[in-house]
Amino acid sequence: MIFSSKLIEDAVQEFSRLPGIGKKTALRMVLQLLKMDEQEVDEFTGAVSRMRHGIRFCKECHNVADSEVCVVCVNPGRNRNQICVVENIRDVIAIESTQQFSGLYHVLGGILSPLDGVGPEQLNLSTLHQRVKNNEVSELIMALSPTIEGDTTVYYIARQLKDLPVTITTIARGIAFGGELEYADEMTLARSIAKRLPIDNYVTMK
Amino acid sequence: MIFSSKLIEDAVQEFSRLPGIGKKTALRMVLQLLKMDEQEVDEFTGAVSRMRHGIRFCKECHNVADSEVCVVCVNPGRNRNQICVVENIRDVIAIESTQQFSGLYHVLGGILSPLDGVGPEQLNLSTLHQRVKNNEVSELIMALSPTIEGDTTVYYIARQLKDLPVTITTIARGIAFGGELEYADEMTLARSIAKRLPIDNYVTMK
Repeated sequence: MIFSSKLIEDAVQEFSRLPGIGKKTALRMVLQLLKMDEQEVDEFTGAVSRMRHGIRFCKECHNVADSEVCVVCVNPGRNRNQICVVENIRDVIAIESTQQFSGLYHVLGGILSPLDGVGPEQLNLSTLHQRVKNNEVSELIMALSPTIEGDTTVYYIARQLKDLPVTITTIARGIAFGGELEYADEMTLARSIAKRLPIDNYVTMK
Repeated sequence: MIFSSKLIEDAVQEFSRLPGIGKKTALRMVLQLLKMDEQEVDEFTGAVSRMRHGIRFCKECHNVADSEVCVVCVNPGRNRNQICVVENIRDVIAIESTQQFSGLYHVLGGILSPLDGVGPEQLNLSTLHQRVKNNEVSELIMALSPTIEGDTTVYYIARQLKDLPVTITTIARGIAFGGELEYADEMTLARSIAKRLPIDNYVTMK
């Protein structure tokens, strides 16, 4: 693409570094920013800049935070006996958005994946061990992806903590609400039959 | 969505004001920016800010420019007898990217659309009239959308300039290269048969 302005070319270049954004989409965004008031664009760049420079990671759970400890960990209303272990911040946002979980989180910052060079030392595992050891944590809920890497990470953590008095659970796998049986993959369907629930249980869970 | 950081929430909010960007896509971009170095993010916000504050519009053709006159108008190698009339900047970029047109441009800034409240006074028509009158322009190539509004604009300009010694042409309509005849709409197909070209002409045009 040939832009007749270096300023626009640079901005398009920067936008196309973002995930899923090609040159054409980047140009559409840049032209939209060009239509906005200068003040609105300053708000845009200001928000991005403040976010990048101001963001911190919670020293307790490694979630994103605006101060030393994140809003979840600092909230006295949360159940400190339950810790939900997740891969990344996006998972925290997804679970928080359900408004059904009242415990704390622990963000691993990835999952074990030897092929990608991610070993135990790259993950926030030692702090997890410390938290379980030093605090009254009765349950660790593993909310990791249902992949080989995810399962490996679950087993690794379970072995690491086997001498500590903590129950380790994983989130339920099965057919999604609104999902059609015929489109479910065989493994999910087989597992959802094997791990079937009594009706009473099902009704109360809903 | 519940973010556990006001900084992230603000940045997502700003990104989701861009066209075609929902909350989830905005979050993906924000998390990508979070992964980048602070310096890279400064380059991003800097490019956007410089673009918005530094951009100017060419006083000749209303194209975007980094100085008073755009790179096309300032280029001595361009053919000053031909002016290609387009709706917006995006069209200039599209035509420039073909590297086949060596004339100048005139950006109207829209097309006549009474339903949307766009009349002749909202478009850059008086400067077009001036350019044709004062300079040696022999041909105006109308490269507007093949819609009722586009055609109306073409006729309006043609009538406005009818006393000036300038030829007005429009870009060819027809079946696109690589297009399948059976998927072409009836109007395009009918027009492409009515405006058929002799083989010689077709070969030289290619």
